[in-house]
Parts: sequence; structure tokens; C-alpha cells
Amino acid sequence: MATTPDTPYEQQRAERAALPLHSTMMPLPLRVTDAMRRAEQLFPEQGIVSRLAPGVMERRSYADIGREARELAGALRELGIGPGQRVATLMWNHGRHLAAYYAVPAIQAVLHPLNPRLSADDLAWIIADAGDSALLIDADLLPLLEQIEQQVRIPHVIVNPLPQQASPGHTGAGRHDWSQLLREAEPLAQWPHGPLDENDPVSVCYTSGTTGRPKGVVYSHRSILLHGLGTALPDAFGLSGRDTLLTLTPMYHVNGWSVPYTAVMLGARQVFAGAHVRPAEVLDLILQEGVTAAFGIPTFWTEVLRALEAEPQRWELPRSLRIYAGGSPPPADMFRRFDQLGVSLQTGWGMTETSPIAHQTWLRPHTDTLSETERLELRTSNGLPLPFVEQRHVNDEGQPLPWDGSSRGELQVRGPWITAQYLSLPQARSATSHDGWLHTGDIVTIRPDGYMRLVDRQKDLVKSGGEWISSVELENALCDHPAVREAAVIGIPHPTWVERPLALVVLRDGHSTTAADLQEHLGARMPRWMLPDRIEFEAELPRTPVGKLDKKALRTLWGASNGAAT
Amino acid sequence: MATTPDTPYEQQRAERAALPLHSTMMPLPLRVTDAMRRAEQLFPEQGIVSRLAPGVMERRSYADIGREARELAGALRELGIGPGQRVATLMWNHGRHLAAYYAVPAIQAVLHPLNPRLSADDLAWIIADAGDSALLIDADLLPLLEQIEQQVRIPHVIVNPLPQQASPGHTGAGRHDWSQLLREAEPLAQWPHGPLDENDPVSVCYTSGTTGRPKGVVYSHRSILLHGLGTALPDAFGLSGRDTLLTLTPMYHVNGWSVPYTAVMLGARQVFAGAHVRPAEVLDLILQEGVTAAFGIPTFWTEVLRALEAEPQRWELPRSLRIYAGGSPPPADMFRRFDQLGVSLQTGWGMTETSPIAHQTWLRPHTDTLSETERLELRTSNGLPLPFVEQRHVNDEGQPLPWDGSSRGELQVRGPWITAQYLSLPQARSATSHDGWLHTGDIVTIRPDGYMRLVDRQKDLVKSGGEWISSVELENALCDHPAVREAAVIGIPHPTWVERPLALVVLRDGHSTTAADLQEHLGARMPRWMLPDRIEFEAELPRTPVGKLDKKALRTLWGASNGAAT
Repeated sequence: MATTPDTPYEQQRAERAALPLHSTMMPLPLRVTDAMRRAEQLFPEQGIVSRLAPGVMERRSYADIGREARELAGALRELGIGPGQRVATLMWNHGRHLAAYYAVPAIQAVLHPLNPRLSADDLAWIIADAGDSALLIDADLLPLLEQIEQQVRIPHVIVNPLPQQASPGHTGAGRHDWSQLLREAEPLAQWPHGPLDENDPVSVCYTSGTTGRPKGVVYSHRSILLHGLGTALPDAFGLSGRDTLLTLTPMYHVNGWSVPYTAVMLGARQVFAGAHVRPAEVLDLILQEGVTAAFGIPTFWTEVLRALEAEPQRWELPRSLRIYAGGSPPPADMFRRFDQLGVSLQTGWGMTETSPIAHQTWLRPHTDTLSETERLELRTSNGLPLPFVEQRHVNDEGQPLPWDGSSRGELQVRGPWITAQYLSLPQARSATSHDGWLHTGDIVTIRPDGYMRLVDRQKDLVKSGGEWISSVELENALCDHPAVREAAVIGIPHPTWVERPLALVVLRDGHSTTAADLQEHLGARMPRWMLPDRIEFEAELPRTPVGKLDKKALRTLWGASNGAAT
Repeated sequence: MATTPDTPYEQQRAERAALPLHSTMMPLPLRVTDAMRRAEQLFPEQGIVSRLAPGVMERRSYADIGREARELAGALRELGIGPGQRVATLMWNHGRHLAAYYAVPAIQAVLHPLNPRLSADDLAWIIADAGDSALLIDADLLPLLEQIEQQVRIPHVIVNPLPQQASPGHTGAGRHDWSQLLREAEPLAQWPHGPLDENDPVSVCYTSGTTGRPKGVVYSHRSILLHGLGTALPDAFGLSGRDTLLTLTPMYHVNGWSVPYTAVMLGARQVFAGAHVRPAEVLDLILQEGVTAAFGIPTFWTEVLRALEAEPQRWELPRSLRIYAGGSPPPADMFRRFDQLGVSLQTGWGMTETSPIAHQTWLRPHTDTLSETERLELRTSNGLPLPFVEQRHVNDEGQPLPWDGSSRGELQVRGPWITAQYLSLPQARSATSHDGWLHTGDIVTIRPDGYMRLVDRQKDLVKSGGEWISSVELENALCDHPAVREAAVIGIPHPTWVERPLALVVLRDGHSTTAADLQEHLGARMPRWMLPDRIEFEAELPRTPVGKLDKKALRTLWGASNGAAT
């Protein structure tokens, strides 16, 4: 080494070089409550619109909802609800449910949205598992609560009266009237500066339990806001403070895909559709409220398309409208039909365990040269993992498989908004592999360029003579037939092949076809051994409480096997 | 309270209710190195294009840069560079500088980009203050290093040869040739799974030091990635993996606005313009490479507009092009001229202390009904704070002022990518108020709807008879005159008024005007007491090393006062 100059700078450099360096950044935690404080300050006039009943609209603002959240927080605190305690909700999508999303974490309690479409027995089980101390409930759901209370009673129940109903006067017996309680309580003067740990819990949701009992997943301030930033990116939902967002996904289903949190973070206008909304009402809402992006399950969008096509002159959807469909894969035909309307449809992948959005299906630049058919094929895939989400798929021995577009294995994911375990289960990593990746139970392929495609739920695969037949592939192929509205495929026991596929088909109104015609349609698309042994025509198919096909019910009905996985 | 049912569910609920709840989310840290690992896996073919010299283009990919980063990390480790040690760079914008951005944190060392436009004396001071242990340098900057080495010597120097130059054979005396060193080193086989603490440092940058000595700000994995998520949002830069990003902001200036980190997180294609790029070359790059978004200071965009207008037939910019200008406020005229070209121009606010983007100027929906003039007025403001950034402005006593659009006070900000202190300064909160808000030294107004507008730097205000005159307002008004290309206003001592404004004006080529004409132009826009006492015409104005107007130099030249604030 050359001579080192003997200067003050050189001495200082050498001394400093031996010292460690630390970040100088402010050590501020991420907190959902800060997002509402910011919205109250920056976007007070921005609208929160709720359809409370057919034709009954409630128009409020971030200033209103922020204040109501602080009032509700004060009221809950006066009832004795403290940090870490669980406050359940049995509510539809509307502004007061949004207020609850922020009131509960404001006192460091934990929000627990309950699904009113579950049975009273399931709900009692979930309430007991979560240990709920209070319940916020829409008045029309009180009959359900009475059934639940045969088995378990929540000490404090706050009743939100029906729209335009005078106060129901629910007092005594632990019952409180929402308006009266808030009127009498001292609201929080300002949003708290706690918790200081962003890993503190905000909300707990239960898996929909298509296998076994529901399992609880607990989200934190950090996970909700990182998920919010990730899903707001242009390659995911592309959310802006200029948007008007229509959340059709129930707020009791994985926090309504967390859109109610993300929208507040961005100051976006929000539209909530309340209970039992019909497709025609949704179309009216989209036009009347200037909705720019809407979120819901494919089944509902199928109904919306039927309504549109039944009255082609009635609605003209804005060409900038974006629709995000998830929960199950939208069929290729749905993309084609929305394309024709100039509406952008995008899907992805996720589950309760992933907050829920882990993947979104955007087209990378190298796909711009593909044909329309190839691009459509890609758009129906489950897409690419969001930033900070990692994906792999593994064989039965847990070995990672190649990204070759054909190897099939269980999808496993990892990331800061993905659960490591389930509430109340004793194991430390009850949800993951030994090396910390979430077991998703979904069988997938991954292309060399990273696009993931769901082949089937592990338990929905038809095990035929050592080969696996994907029920999803058969269903999608059947739905591509012009006469078919919907299809479900299940495995039924077979003496030689263990299982063979049975297809249940619902036809479009005014269309007809035969089983032989459908077999021919399928035969042109897939090998002979994959074709169903039987095709039955049905008037409709059973659904789970969140609107998915209820294959458990179909298997019971058709005496099918239970699938290999649990 | 009504009778509580004596059921197993009820017992379980009550027991569970007494227990605290914890998040079940994976405790994974945010790490910039994971972003590059993901890009190598998901976007290996995506391009990193560098202009190394006029006409000399280097075309590489994320796979190439990721591998080179792991090679460089291995080489640095073999030189003995360990966790927490500082690795400086003296490099232009290109792919190897990007590799260094990831190689250094891969061994948990800290990147320290040096500004080659500073004097050797300033650089020696900064190197001593940071305690740098190694330096990566472009070969054309070796003469500067020789000057620096009169005062301070960095033990390990790795020389990146000039483009198309054979290895310069810089061996011995602590000098290493980049290619040779990497060839002989063992690359990291994979990206590390450390550090486990996302608050560990990644990079240190120094303020540009328009007042006093430069001060170091240390960014962490967490701050860089949260800033990346925040700036990628649709209301900020709206960045996508479909974008091709041209970073004209130097990578030694606040990490090139951190775009090189954010782009990797998203898998966006990147174009780097190397050293001494001219406006015509930039226009060629935009067209040839299909640039969708470009980042740079207003001064440069002024030159680009001049080049465009000098040869109106030569370039037709894509109408989807987005330009983000920052560092100083772009004049209204620049918005008008880009609007005419169908190019979107957006500004905001930030500084080294804020990573740097704290604000962006997007138009909220309630402004859609404003006139074009009013919207333009708003677009020239400094916008709204990003999610997780809070703003306030305070009077001399530190009291928050009302958001009324007219009260003037010092802007203070707070957030997870904002510094709390400066490197090497002894005070715990050297950068902030007693309650933890960053002192920005910028005098601003804030509208009731949150839009912030820079009135002036504290030190650039002209103190005239107890009133403050904004040099920025006068400069913007002068630039709105068709003959004016550029203007600078400084305060010069006055026996009665303490200070009075002096305006220095550069005319557009082929235009002429008089001081009297300009006074009339100004007189139509602002009160008489604000008008400059003198207007002088100049051929050009002095600039700081980062391209901003050098008011310190102007004040020395014109015998002006130094301003009240330091």
C-alpha cells in the first residue's frame, strides 16, 4: 500500500472506519390508526357511500366515519374492553362496519368479523375459539344471535338498528343501542400514538373451513399496511386517491380483501353495497356513484354479466372500470365478455392465510408479442407473486419442483403478510413447512417466467389409476361450451380406478345440449382418460357461505369419496 | 345480564377472552437484497441498459447484474470488508453502479455514493466523516481521486475501466482492477438471509451542503423499501414492472431518488445515461429504448425542451411518457410546454433527509371542476404527503400554523423514511424538533385541502422592512415572461430596508427585453414593495454540483447578505 497521508482527515477516517454505523431513520411503527388520522386530516370531505337497503343510500365522509370510529372506541373503552380483547362483528358492508375497523384497533383491541352466512353452531364454535368479549351486530341478524346464544353468550352486544328504524331500545341483558351508546360515551379526542409495536394484532379472521373446523389467522398493523401498499401498486389493484372503490367482497371475509384499510390509507372514495345486493343494483351503483374499481368473486360477476346481457340497453359501463375477481379462478369466457364491454378484468391468487392477496395476474412486457389467445390463456392464470411474497411448489417429499410450466406440486408461499400459524393450535408453526413456508393445499404449475396456475385444490383432485385429474381444468373446459353456465366436477369411487370424474352441469337460460355433445367438446381439448364418466344436468349447484361451489355438499349428495387430502 | 349458558363453548370463550392475542404473521424483515434475489428469479431477462459514453450502449439483464453483484460482494468480502463497514462509490449512472447498490448490502456493509462534482476538499472531508474503508471508482475519475488522496486515502480502491478500455491493470498500492478482482473472487452462491433486522443500514448519503458542511443521513433496508412502495403508488410515480425507467438523477444524489432500488423491487426495465449526457442524447434514448418514465431536475428538463423546440421535427415523444421533476420547483411554463407535447409532468417535494420523496403533486378529485389555470396553479405546488408521511408548518416559536393557504412557516415532516438525526453529530435528535419532526428549513404554506407550497428556503427569503419577500415567487413570475429563460433573486443589503431583492435574468436565445418591461410584467402580478430594486441580465447563472442555482456563489459575487438563517 502507498504511503498514507498523515493528516487530520486520515486519522478521522481510520477512527470512524472502526465504528459501526446505524440507521438515522425515525423509528416510527406502521399503524392502521394513523391511516385514519391522516384521512380525517387530508381527505375529510371524501365520501363513504353505503347502500343500507334497496334504494336506501347513506352518504357520509371520512370526517364522519373518523369521528364515529373515535366515538365507538370511547364507548367500547367505557364498557371495559381493553388492549388485546376481541370485539366481534356480525355486520354487512357499510360505513359503520368501516368505523368499527378503526375503532377497535384505536383501543388496541382486536377486530373479529364473523360471517353471518355460517351456521349458528359454527359461529358459536368460532366465538368460543376466539374468546370474543363484545359483539357489534346489524339488527337484522339478531335472530341468528339468539340461536348462537343457546351455546355461547358474548358479554357486550351493541346493536346497529335497521336503516330508518328508530332506536330499537336494546338495553339491559348486555344489549346496547349503537346510537345511544355512542351519544353517551366520551369519544377519543385524537387517534392514539400506540401501539408502539407494529406487530400488535389488529384483526382475526377464520378460514372458511371447507375442510375441518375453521382456523383463526391474526393480522397485525404491519401485515395489513404492507399488504395494502403491495395491493395498491400499479401491477396489483393500482389504487389511487382518485378512485371510487366498490367492495363487494364481504367485510367479514378476510377483511373485505383488506380494501377498507387500503382505501383509507390512500384517501379513496368508498362505496359499500350492504346486505343481499342484486346484480342490477350493483350495475346501478357503478353508474350512479362513478365507481372506478370493484372487487368480488367470479360467481357474482357471472350474475352481473347475465344481468347486463339480459338488458343490453340499460347500462353502459364506463370503459375505465377495473374489476378484480378472486376466491376462485374466473373462466376465460368472463375475460372475453368484459373485454367486449371495454372493462378490465384481472385475477390473482390468495387465501385467508395470505391477507388475502399474494398474487396478481398482470402481463409482463415480454408477453406483448403473444397472440390474443395466448395472452388470454395467461390472464386466466393465477399470476405472479407481489413484491415481498415468495413462491415455490413442492412434491410429496417437500422438494421444490422446476418452474417448467408442467410439474405439478403444492404451492407454498412466504412473506410478511402470510401467516406462520393458526390461532389456538398448539404447534409453533402449525401453518408451515419445517422451513417456514405456508402450506396452501393448492396444486399448481409454475412457468419459467414465474406465472403460477392453480391446477386444483389438493382435496378436489380426482385420483384416477395413479394419475391426477384436475376438476378445475374439466370445469373450465365445460364452461367454455356456449350452452354451459356453470360446472362442478367431483371424484366418485370406482372399483378399478379408485376414483373417476363426475360432472354436474348447469345450462344457460334458453340453451340446451346433451351429455354426448359435451363429451365431444371435452374430447377435443383433453385426453380420453381425463373425460368424466358421467355428466348430469342440474338446475343449480350448492354454494358455501362465501359463495364458492360447495364440493363437500356435492360429495355427500353424490356419495363421492372425500379426497385424499383433508 | 341474562343467564349465561353453562356449555363447553361458554367456558372456552371465557377462558380464551382472558388471554392476550398475538399476530400469527411471519416475522420476516424487509431486505433490499431479497428484492434483487426476486428479480433474478422472476425477471432474469429484463434489461438494464447503460449509455457508457456517447454512442456506446451496454445491454445487460437482471440475471447479469444480479450475478455481478454477488461476484462483487464476494470480492469485497475477500478484501476484508465486513458488516457495518462503508464502501464508497465515485461512479456515474450505469449497470455496475447498480450492481454495487446490491453487492454492498449483501455483505451487510454500507454503500456510500460520493458526488464527483464536489471539490476534492469537500470529498476528503466527507470520506473522513463517513470512515470509508473501500472505494469503487470509474476510471475517468481517477484524477479527482489523486487530489483527494493528498488529504485522505481509502485502503481499497476498485477501478472500473473506461468503456472499451482494456483492463487498466491497476494493481498494487491498494488498487484493484474491477474485472480481474471479480474474476478471481468466489461469488456469493446465493443472496444472504441476513440481516435479520430490517433497521440495519444499507446506504449513507450526504446533504448537498448549501449551508455549512455536508451532513450524513443513513438509510435502512426498511426505509428504502417503504419509500419504494410509497413512491411506486399510482398517486406518486405509479411504477410498474411494465415500465422502462430512465434515471437521470445521479445515483450519487440520494441514491438516484432510490429509483434503482424501487425498480428492482418491481422488476422494471432500467436505462442509465452515464456521464455528461446531453439533452439530444436523452431524447434519443427515450425514443430508442421506449422509456415510459424519466426522473430529473427541472434545469435539465428546461434544456430538453430547448433541444426539442430547436428541432421540432426531430423527436416525437410518446404520449404516455411521464416525467418526474424535483430538486427545485419546475416553473408553470414547463407544465404548459410538456402538456402541449402530450407528456405528463409531475413534481413534489423532498430532500436528502427524506429519502428523498416525501410529497407528490397529484390532483384530488375535488379539483376536477377547477379551471385549467387553477389546476395549473395547483400542479406547480409541492403537493400532498405520501402515505405514512405527516406534514405541519410552524412559526418561529414552533407552534403549528393553520392550513389556510396563506400562513407561512417552516415545513416539518415525520415518517418512517425520514431522518431523525445526522451521522456523526453528537445530539440524539440533531435533525428534529424536540417532539420529533424533521426541521426542513423550507418556508411553506398549506391549503385547507393539504396541498403544500414552497415559499422559499429560509435562508433565501429577502428580509425587507419586517416583511419577507419570496425569491422563488419572483423567480417564477420572471420565468413566466416569454423572453426569460432563467432567473435568480437574492437579497442585497439596504440601509433602510435591511435587504432588497436583486434579480439576475438569463434571456432565451433570440429574445430581448428590458428591465422596465420586466418590472411592468412583475407589477401586474405582485405588490409594488415586492418588486426587485434592480434587474441585471446575465449570460448564465452559477450552479451547485447537483445542478441547482448556486445562490451562495451569487451572494458572494454581488456582495449580498448571507440570509438570516444559516
